[in-house]
This record gives sequence, C-alpha cells and structure tokens, in this order.
Amino acid sequence: MAYGRKLRMGLVGGAGGFIGQVHRMAAALDGEVELVCGAFSSSPEKSRAAGEALYLAPERVYASYQEMFSRERERDDAMDFVSIVTPNYLHAEIAIAALRAGFHVLCEKPMTTDLASAKQLADTVAETGKRFCLMHNYSGYPMVKEARARIRNGSIGELRKIVVEYPQGWLAGDFASAGVKHQSWKLDPELSGGSCCLGDIGTHAFHLTEYVTGLRVAELCADLSVFVDYKPLEDDANILLHFASGARGVLYASQVSINDENSLAFRIYGSKGGLEWHQEEPNTLVAKWPDRPREIIRTGSGNAYLTPAALGTTRIPAGHPEGFVEAFANIYLEFGRAVRESAAGTASDEYDFPSVIDGMREVAFVKTAWESQRSRKWLPLPGV
Amino acid sequence: MAYGRKLRMGLVGGAGGFIGQVHRMAAALDGEVELVCGAFSSSPEKSRAAGEALYLAPERVYASYQEMFSRERERDDAMDFVSIVTPNYLHAEIAIAALRAGFHVLCEKPMTTDLASAKQLADTVAETGKRFCLMHNYSGYPMVKEARARIRNGSIGELRKIVVEYPQGWLAGDFASAGVKHQSWKLDPELSGGSCCLGDIGTHAFHLTEYVTGLRVAELCADLSVFVDYKPLEDDANILLHFASGARGVLYASQVSINDENSLAFRIYGSKGGLEWHQEEPNTLVAKWPDRPREIIRTGSGNAYLTPAALGTTRIPAGHPEGFVEAFANIYLEFGRAVRESAAGTASDEYDFPSVIDGMREVAFVKTAWESQRSRKWLPLPGV
Amino acid sequence: MAYGRKLRMGLVGGAGGFIGQVHRMAAALDGEVELVCGAFSSSPEKSRAAGEALYLAPERVYASYQEMFSRERERDDAMDFVSIVTPNYLHAEIAIAALRAGFHVLCEKPMTTDLASAKQLADTVAETGKRFCLMHNYSGYPMVKEARARIRNGSIGELRKIVVEYPQGWLAGDFASAGVKHQSWKLDPELSGGSCCLGDIGTHAFHLTEYVTGLRVAELCADLSVFVDYKPLEDDANILLHFASGARGVLYASQVSINDENSLAFRIYGSKGGLEWHQEEPNTLVAKWPDRPREIIRTGSGNAYLTPAALGTTRIPAGHPEGFVEAFANIYLEFGRAVRESAAGTASDEYDFPSVIDGMREVAFVKTAWESQRSRKWLPLPGV
Amino acid sequence: MAYGRKLRMGLVGGAGGFIGQVHRMAAALDGEVELVCGAFSSSPEKSRAAGEALYLAPERVYASYQEMFSRERERDDAMDFVSIVTPNYLHAEIAIAALRAGFHVLCEKPMTTDLASAKQLADTVAETGKRFCLMHNYSGYPMVKEARARIRNGSIGELRKIVVEYPQGWLAGDFASAGVKHQSWKLDPELSGGSCCLGDIGTHAFHLTEYVTGLRVAELCADLSVFVDYKPLEDDANILLHFASGARGVLYASQVSINDENSLAFRIYGSKGGLEWHQEEPNTLVAKWPDRPREIIRTGSGNAYLTPAALGTTRIPAGHPEGFVEAFANIYLEFGRAVRESAAGTASDEYDFPSVIDGMREVAFVKTAWESQRSRKWLPLPGV
Repeated sequence: MAYGRKLRMGLVGGAGGFIGQVHRMAAALDGEVELVCGAFSSSPEKSRAAGEALYLAPERVYASYQEMFSRERERDDAMDFVSIVTPNYLHAEIAIAALRAGFHVLCEKPMTTDLASAKQLADTVAETGKRFCLMHNYSGYPMVKEARARIRNGSIGELRKIVVEYPQGWLAGDFASAGVKHQSWKLDPELSGGSCCLGDIGTHAFHLTEYVTGLRVAELCADLSVFVDYKPLEDDANILLHFASGARGVLYASQVSINDENSLAFRIYGSKGGLEWHQEEPNTLVAKWPDRPREIIRTGSGNAYLTPAALGTTRIPAGHPEGFVEAFANIYLEFGRAVRESAAGTASDEYDFPSVIDGMREVAFVKTAWESQRSRKWLPLPGV
Repeated sequence: MAYGRKLRMGLVGGAGGFIGQVHRMAAALDGEVELVCGAFSSSPEKSRAAGEALYLAPERVYASYQEMFSRERERDDAMDFVSIVTPNYLHAEIAIAALRAGFHVLCEKPMTTDLASAKQLADTVAETGKRFCLMHNYSGYPMVKEARARIRNGSIGELRKIVVEYPQGWLAGDFASAGVKHQSWKLDPELSGGSCCLGDIGTHAFHLTEYVTGLRVAELCADLSVFVDYKPLEDDANILLHFASGARGVLYASQVSINDENSLAFRIYGSKGGLEWHQEEPNTLVAKWPDRPREIIRTGSGNAYLTPAALGTTRIPAGHPEGFVEAFANIYLEFGRAVRESAAGTASDEYDFPSVIDGMREVAFVKTAWESQRSRKWLPLPGV
Repeated sequence: MAYGRKLRMGLVGGAGGFIGQVHRMAAALDGEVELVCGAFSSSPEKSRAAGEALYLAPERVYASYQEMFSRERERDDAMDFVSIVTPNYLHAEIAIAALRAGFHVLCEKPMTTDLASAKQLADTVAETGKRFCLMHNYSGYPMVKEARARIRNGSIGELRKIVVEYPQGWLAGDFASAGVKHQSWKLDPELSGGSCCLGDIGTHAFHLTEYVTGLRVAELCADLSVFVDYKPLEDDANILLHFASGARGVLYASQVSINDENSLAFRIYGSKGGLEWHQEEPNTLVAKWPDRPREIIRTGSGNAYLTPAALGTTRIPAGHPEGFVEAFANIYLEFGRAVRESAAGTASDEYDFPSVIDGMREVAFVKTAWESQRSRKWLPLPGV
Repeated sequence: MAYGRKLRMGLVGGAGGFIGQVHRMAAALDGEVELVCGAFSSSPEKSRAAGEALYLAPERVYASYQEMFSRERERDDAMDFVSIVTPNYLHAEIAIAALRAGFHVLCEKPMTTDLASAKQLADTVAETGKRFCLMHNYSGYPMVKEARARIRNGSIGELRKIVVEYPQGWLAGDFASAGVKHQSWKLDPELSGGSCCLGDIGTHAFHLTEYVTGLRVAELCADLSVFVDYKPLEDDANILLHFASGARGVLYASQVSINDENSLAFRIYGSKGGLEWHQEEPNTLVAKWPDRPREIIRTGSGNAYLTPAALGTTRIPAGHPEGFVEAFANIYLEFGRAVRESAAGTASDEYDFPSVIDGMREVAFVKTAWESQRSRKWLPLPGV
C-alpha cells in the first residue's frame, strides 16, 4: 500500500471531554497512524498546552483550524487527514474547509445539525474526491460486524422485528453536576442542532440499526420527552419504526435512565433465527434458533467459526477482552486503508465505514422524529 | 381464620394445555386448598379421564360447568370456589354463572374478550358480593412486589420512564408445529376475542405495568403486525404509552421473537433511581442509583433488607430458587385469605390480587390498541 | 399403578426450620401424595400446633415417632411411607424403626453421621425390602439430569476434570444472628456428627459429583478450616479429588462465603466438551465445545432437543422458571413411583433417586476428609 | 517529568504470536512511548520483515539482541528501555544483558524458569539500579486495583478464603491443531522450564492472588495432571493454599477446560464482606455483604465512588468497555512513570507494577508445586 510510513493525522478539537483522547488512542493503537499536528481548542493557550502534553512539535500546534489547514498544506510532511472532534455545530464547516484544503476527513458524529449543511458537505466530498468517514464507532465492534455478515448471508432469514435501545443515565440529575457541565453545549439548542438525546446517542442507535440490518427506515412515529427541566431539549425518545422491507421496529434512547451507563443494544428477529448484542459486553453475540439451544458467539482471533468480517477486525485470542477503543480503532484502520488505496489509485467503491450519505440519513432521522413528535403522527423519513 | 380446614376448589377446564396443571400445583403447594371437583373438558370422556388421573371421587367429576355448579351447591361439603381455566371466550359466562350459583371465582386472564361482558361480570361481582380474582400470576413474584413496594414508598422518586417487554418465539414457525396446534384457539378471532399477542401476553405486560408502577395508562399509540400469515391476528405489538402522571413508556409484546422463551421484563426509571426485573430470573431485582453501585436485590426468607411485601411472599431462604408455580401460588394464597375472611366477616377492602376492575382495564387496552393501529393515531384509554 | 389413590405420607420432624415445609410442598405439588399424619416435634405441644396448622385430623398428630409408627400400622388407612426431616443425628434410628414397622422411608440427608449406623440402616433396608430414598434434592433438577444423560451417552467424551463448588455465607457472622440460632444443632459436634460444613452441604456436593459424572471418588486430600471461632466444627472445606477413572477434581464447600446464597455449581470437562451448571439459575445448562459456540440448554417442556431425562422431569414450558421445590418434588415423584410399583409387584432394580448406598458413601466421604485433614495426607475413600 | 518527549522503546522478540502485538499496542495507546527499534526474531529475515511492517528505520532493526544493545547504546537517540517478549527460557539472559548495557527492562512473565537465574537477575537489577518491570498485565485492570485498594483499606475485613481460577481450553485437543503449533515451545520441557500450565497461566493466577490480597502463600499442596499425552508437562493444576496470615485458598489452572477462553477469576472472602472478579468481564467487580444487597462496582471515569486506584487507571466513562490492552497499557504507564522519575532523580520506593521479587516468588511457586506433586505432600513455599 501507499506511503510506506505511518499516516499523518491532524486533530481539530479534543482538548476537553474524553472523545478526543479516544480518537488519539484509537488512531495510535495499530501503529498505522501518527498524530503530527492539531488545533485542539478555540483557546490558543489550551491548544498549546494540549499539544505540549502530546509531545508535538510546537510549530505544529495551531490556534485555529484555518491556520492549521493553510500551514499544513505548505509542508512536505503535511498531515494526510484530519480528525474533527469539536462540538457538533462546527463539524460541517470544518469538514468542508478541510476537504477543500485537500485533506481527507474523519468526522465525529453527528455529521451536522441541519440538512442543508449535510447536503453541502456531501457535495463537497463528491467534488473534492477526498475520503470522508463519519465516526460511528459502534459499527466497529467485531460482533456487530458478525451480526451484519450473518444477516447478509441469510442465516436468520427475512427480518421481521428489530429492537434497538440506548439508555443512559448521565442527564438524570441536575445541571450543576460535574458530568453534565463539561458537555453543556449538548444542551444548548443553538449549538447542538435542536436535539439532545437523539443527536447525541439516538443517531448512534439509528445508524447501528441500518448498518447491521441493511434495511432502511421508511417511516416513524416518535414520542420525545423532556424530563429534567433546565433544558429545552429532549432527554428521552421512544420511536416506532417501519422499514421499507415491511419489517417493524422499536428504537429508544434515553439520558435519564439512571445507572444505565452506555447500554446500547440490539435484538433482531428474522424468520429463521435471531441475534442479540449488548455494547457493554461487546465480545458476545447471542444467536437464537427455533429448535436448538441459543449459541454464544464470541470475539477472538482463534474462533474459526466466525465470519471474515469478525475475524478481520479481532486482534487477540478469545477471552482477552477487546473494548471500545479497539472498535474505534477498527474504523480508523478501514479509513486508513481507504486513504492509502486512494493515494495508490486502487480505491474501491465500498469501504466498511460510515459515509457522508449515512450522515445525511441521521440528520433526516432527527428532524423527522421532532416533526413526528410535534404532529403526533407517523411521518415518512425523507429518502437520501 | 374461617373454615378450620383446607378450602375446597373446583376446576372448570384444564384437561389440555399446561395452565390447568399449573393451577392445580399452585393451589396445592401451600396446603391451604384441596381440589374436590371439576368439569375438566367439554368432552365428558376427557373430563372423566382427567378426574380419575387426579384421584377425584367419580361423582364429583362433571360433564359440564352447569352440572357442576348445580350439583355442588346441594352438597354439604360443596366446593368453596371455582377456578376457570377454559379458552378465553368462555371466561365471562362461566364466571358469571359461578358467582350467581354462590361460588367465589378465580379466573384466568384475560377476563373476557369484549367490554360488554367485562362490564356484566363486574356488575355480577358487585351484586353477589363474592370474591373474584383475575389470575395475573406475574404479579405474584416476590421481587415484583418488592419493586411495587419500593415505588410506593418513593425510593426511586417520581416515575419518568417505563419499558415493559414481553417477547416470546413460539408462534414464529408454521401452524403445523406441535407447540402451536394445541393452542390453536388462540389464533381464531372468534374464540380469542380478536387479538392474539395482546390478549395472550400483552395483557400480562399491561397489568404488570400498572400493578408495579401504580400509574394508569392515559393514552397509547400502537403498531401491531402479523408476520406469520396463516392467521389474521397480530403476533407482534409495539406500543408507546403516556401515563396520566406524565410518565412515558414503551410496551412491546411479540410471539415471533425466536428463542425468547417467556421473557417478560420491566425497567422503570424515576427521578432518584431505577428498578429492573426479568421474569426468567425472577428472584433478582436490580436497583439502580445515580451515584453508587447498582444493587442486586434477591428473594429469600432471610434477606432482612426486603420489604414486607417480598418477605411475606417468599417461602424459602435465598439461593433456593422460587419459580413460576410459587408466584402463582401467592395469588392463590391471597385469594384464599380473602375467601376465608369473607366467611369470617372480616374482609378488608383491598387484597393484593388482580380485580375485576383490572380485568376491565385490560380489555379496554386491547381494544384501544387495535383502534390505534387501524387509525395510526394516539388514542385515549377509556377510563374504567 | 397400584393404590388408585394418593399415597399417604407421614412426617417426622418439620415443626421448625424450612426443610419440613419444603418436603410438604414438594410432596403436595403433583397431586400424588397427601400428608395424613405426623410427629412434628419432640415437644408434643409443638407437634399438635403444627398438625393443626396443617389441617390434620387431631388423632393423627403424634407425640413421638414411636407412637406414630405403632398407631399407624394398626389403621386401615395407614400412611404408606414416612419422610424424616429431623436433625441429622436422629435420621438413622428413626429410619430403621420405620422400616421395621413396615413403612417405606424417605430420609433427609445426611443419612447418618457415622459409618456403623449407616451400615445398620443399609442392612435394614435389605432385610425389610422396603423402599428407602435419601433426599438429595439437587439431583432432581432437570438440567442436572440432562447433564448426567449427556455424560452417559458420551457426548462430552472421557471425563478429565471436575470442579464442584458449594459456597454459602450464612455462618460467616456471629452466633447470635437469627439465621444461625434456629439451626444451632448443626454446630454441635454431638448432634451433627462431627462435621458442620461437610455434613450439611459438602455431602450434597459430593453426591451431585458422583451422580452427574457416574464416576467414583477413589482418594482425596482435604483442607478444612474453622474461621468463626464459637464452634469446633469446620465451616470451610477445600478438597482435591482423584476419581477411580483417572479423572481429577476439586470440590469445595464453605459457609463463610459472605453473600453467596446457595451457590452449588459444577463444571465438568471431558475430551470432547464440557458442561456447566449453577443451582441458583437451575434452568440453564451450558454446553461447551472446542470448535463451535457454547450452547445454552434450557429446561422446558417444549424443548425437543432435550434428553428424556430432562423432558420427563420438566413440568412447564421453557421460560416459566422451575425452582427448588420442583426439583425436590421430582425426587418425591420417583420415590412414589417406586412405592407404587413395589405394591404392584412391578418394581425395577433401579430408580433415579439416591439410595442407601449413596448415603453410606457420603458418610465415608466426610469421615475420610476429616482424617485427611488431621494427617495432612492423601487418603483413599473406603469402597462401599 | 523528565525527557519532555515520548519514551523510546526497543523490542526483543514479537515477530510471531500475539503477545508482541499486544506490547506494541499497549505501549502506543497513551502516546507516552514510541517504538524505535527491535530485534524481533532469531531469524534476521523475519526480524527485518517485522521492522518494515512496523515502519521502523531499517538501521534500527537488528539481527540479534546483542547487536541491538551494543548499537543502541552508541546512539544519541538511543532507546530508553527494552521490552522482552521472547520464549520464556530466554527472558533472564536478555534482561541481564539489557540491564548491564544500561537499559531499563520490561519483561514478559514468567521472569525465568529456574531459581538460580531468577536470583542472578534480581542481583543485576540491584547492581545496575535500572528499572525492571515484570509484565503481569492482569494486575493492570482498574477493577483489580479497586479490589486491592478495598482489601487494603479493610472494607471486607480480615481475609479468610481465596478462590482463584484460571481455566483455558486451548490445549485440550491434539498437537496438530493450529492454535497449539505456533506456541509449541511451551510444551518443550527444555524451553519452557519444566512446566506448561503453571508457567504459562498458573503464574498469572499466583501473582494476581498475592497482588490483590497482599497476602503471602506460605505452603501448598498440588495436584498436577497431564491429560493430553503428547507432552510431558502438566496441562492442569489444582492447588490448595495456606497463607502466612492463616487464610486458606484454592488455586486452579487448566488448559484442558474446553471452551473456557481465558477465564481468570477470583473470589475473596473476608470477615466483613467479599469481592468477586472475572477477567472476561473485567469492568465489573462484585462486592458482597452479609446484610445488604451485593453491589455491582464498575470501571468508569465518572464513577466517583471508586477508589483513586481504579479512577487513576480508567480512561473513559462507564459503559465504554475497557479491555485487555488498556490493562496492559496501565502497566506500561506506571513503568514509564518510573523510568521518567528515575531520570529526574525523583524515583520513589514503590511503583504499582510487578517487581523482580514477584518474579522470584512465582518461579519458587512453580518449583514447589511440582515438588508437592511428586511427594504428594504439603510443602512450604521458600521465602523470597
């Protein structure tokens, strides 16, 4: 593959919160990427401090993403791609700027907070021919990929019922609590795009649903709630789903489900069998059959019964738990492959990471859910 | 208490299926009740064979419930109450006949299949002054009662979100399969009352929801499906719930969830904590807190931290699993207490078993769900 | 089968503790047995009160087992068998007296507390030709029988390694605690037979091991401890096992394992696979394979993949939890079958309940473990 | 801290197997270490290929560790420490050579295969004053550290009983199976040091036991077995333990426990409570209490109830699973801190990673277990 060296990564954002650290760990894990520069904060001081803590060369720690893009493109050893981990409302403008400056982009979800900028970003990807990856890390777990592969090969038959849930409890308390404060932009309608729970975690659940099943949501009926009153945005969402195929589903997400940590899970039932997965025990996939015992399918490089989709994204033997960072790193690996193949001129049409089109669908999902809530009606999800 | 002997029970139905056997085991478990007579089947031969297998005196095995009621009321040692375990469509007429013949009644759920007969039954209960118990066995589990007591005493605060699920898989296959055949009346619109999944198990989920939370469902939006096409009735139901208190909920029931055995479960979230329970591991209740570890609350006569509601319905020490029959038997125990206190003239206004009013509510629930499905709208649940 | 009526049962002991109640519930569960008489306590008042609470005829509530045996044998409607649930040190003398009086016997474990009386009891069983059943209820679970059947039919190959554990925590605290007080005879060397933890629960673990595997323990090396100092008897036991077949094992039992309720479990590994079972979730058996996913085998009358051993001891459909009482009742059912077939002259040579020989082996096991502890050596288990 | 840059790491071994990859991922994860050189294989071709795949400068990929040490020490940008991931029998000689060449050392376990070389290595550490870390990665899990901190602060009282188990199944089949072949040196007495199961995984269990409890094993009685006959070394070990404090224990390790993946676990019982942990679900620690529900303690940066020991080794919020690599990386972080503080002259006396003394104890443990097996006796563990 191209380059013959580690890919060079720049980072926008990431001085606060934990997601920046996760991106750095995931990028570093497999020795395929090195962080070479960053604009870590809108505060130049914070950005400089972050760069120093990361042992970066001081001249490659920038005060703004604009500065970073313009200075890096002049270097012989310029970054190859940029990862964007800022608050949601900045994703689109930075991504568009990066693409236009000639850099591939890996962007945290949600891609944008409105359909217009989503469309603009999609157009920019098409125009520039650069690689764009939307970070839905949960699709990086080997057992998620195993489930997807099994559904694709028909092992559980025609899909009938899908239950996807994503309960969390971190917004159940009052605003002053520490866990809430440092992510307070999520609660500001201007900055978060008019949605809290759906934008933050509902989009993960929605993407995971479509990714694993291969189905497309055709219409939905949403019931959104605000339980904790300091904020105008929903902290709980229960949504009925109709898929284009005729399958039915329930998707719910919540930030007031006390003590549920990050309990994303799916249960998918087909005409021949079922599959169940829980993110908090990510190395196990349960396969259900009508006439024989359920099976406990496990991540692990030695488990020869796994599909290539899982074996190719598992790093170590069974029983050595692979976690959140490894799943995240799988997205980086696949994105890195696309970047290298792009440089080599061998790029394929399809890579196994979320695309700009996936990002558009999830923006439409959030918008439609809110419209359904306001009208108390079933509404179609606009085709993308 | 009154009688100074075991209570005498008669049984209508129960020659086939497993539910008759469960009633007999539950009634016998605690030594408070003895089965003395029965009309076990609409076939006199089957009824006689069933009575013989149960070591009953031949003269107390009857060819019809009408015969049983008229003959038993003439005996000095007549039965004290009758348990009704026939197909659903017969429940109301038999219960009304029994009450009018002077017998207390314990009736399998659902109480009836239409609102008119439900009302008539409720009126008959009021007129005769006899005890009427609707068998919702899941409310008999000690950990269900523990959850209810904790919610009542405010330990998890004001309720916000309720998720109740009841997936089963036994109707996922074709009609010829053995498990389906012997319960085929459940699939006949005439006999089942126009509902399959909701009437059979959705009513359990609905009753459990209102029983545990103490809340009342105010309106709902239902999405019902028929996935297996030999039947005209729904085999899957996803329902959004609004409670009168302002709480929100999701209730789903399914008979096409392959390999899910009898997976009734609830998760209830309040402003101070949460509670989670799974019927297939009924001796465990999970308590969730915002700022300390979740707790594993366990059935067991020695667990002094339990509320009286759980301690009073637990028979043996922790770690000795109590199951389905014990929960069932708890309903019989409480009903027996009501019968004895009724005879003693010491009856109270409230007993901890499902009432005829609960039965009316669940008939209304099924009816409203189907109307919501047909209209694709949120609909109010008629007050009962 | 013989009798054409319920079998008549008498009870010795059972006024205090929970085990008498369990015997009564287990005997009543299936409608095959009725309790007709008892000598419930060495205190005539307590015995009378117990009999009244059980709605027994006053003339069949006795002040002593001797009175019961002599009076019952003169009745036309005499009891058919007696269940013995007294403190351990009385088991043998009562059982011998009952057999000699012409009654079949079902006896709580351990059978006796010394080898001499065990031998005498075995001789009496042989002489009288009466049925004798030792109550090791854990062997009554369907999934235990499933494991045994699978091992017998070779599905996991030649057995290599067995781990059996039985941790409890109820003796971890001080003597004054309520849970301890009412079973204080277990701590008295005279009354308990010189062993606490091993006699009380170690014998269950030992019997379960030999029952499920079909192997015989050939030698052992024991490490017994007294952690709570008010008692002279062991409250913890760790034992290495060599089986006659060459298999190896670890058996441990403990009464100081705080918050472990009744956590009997086994893991058995053969050359082709493994099996794992936990008593606190008794309806699940885990099957382990070298090259495919582990399987979750479940109790349930509709699970056609089960062996007859499990299907024949399961009462209700999968997902309706069967518990401790049901397992207990399975021993009663099989014992009842032996009693009926004995009367009919159709008795077979082998029944699936623990025998007097099993009882002798477990007495030898406790004795050898204590000798190994004192000598710090591996010792052979005397052949029985 | 010293250096102001990433620490530079060299690697000896790691071209085959998975453990070299794990070291590289763990070292890279936190951005504190960069791999700068290696002697990856005794085959220069393999070493060169490995270095190229890792994007190393060709001149820093060496044909032998001797060459690496002598060439690196001449460079201005020399590695700071070396990680040793060769087969066990080479650990000591390479570690001694590295220390003498002036490099800090991080060494895979077991440290050596005989006591003499263990002693020589310990002396060399003392003479050179260099940092030496033995990689027992399981002690790096946050919940293991939480358990240790809680035991240290007395929350479960005086320790009584410890059960440590480590079942695996990868050596249950025949030699030709792929999983076995590439680690065949583990089965060669010369290369593995006369032990298979104990050296490979028993040492982990032993170290974890002493690490978490703070107790020291005083004597043991071992039962070792060879079940699969192509090899002369034990593949199963059951060991009774006496601790110097009076506590008792059982430790077992197995490589023939089919389908048990990497099931290291401990259960520790004290006079006030208990703790239970399973490596395959490493983010959960169960706390057991005599009079209140058991608690589910969870890894997670926001779980304020955790001790600093766990909070300081947790990277991300609860519910985002941290796995094997993160635990491994925690050892690297602490070792890195020691290296930096050593350079800064601020080194403390105690770091939280396994020492050369721990390594000596585990060599003594394996030796004593084999002697106990041969003599069928309890034997004291030589003090170290």
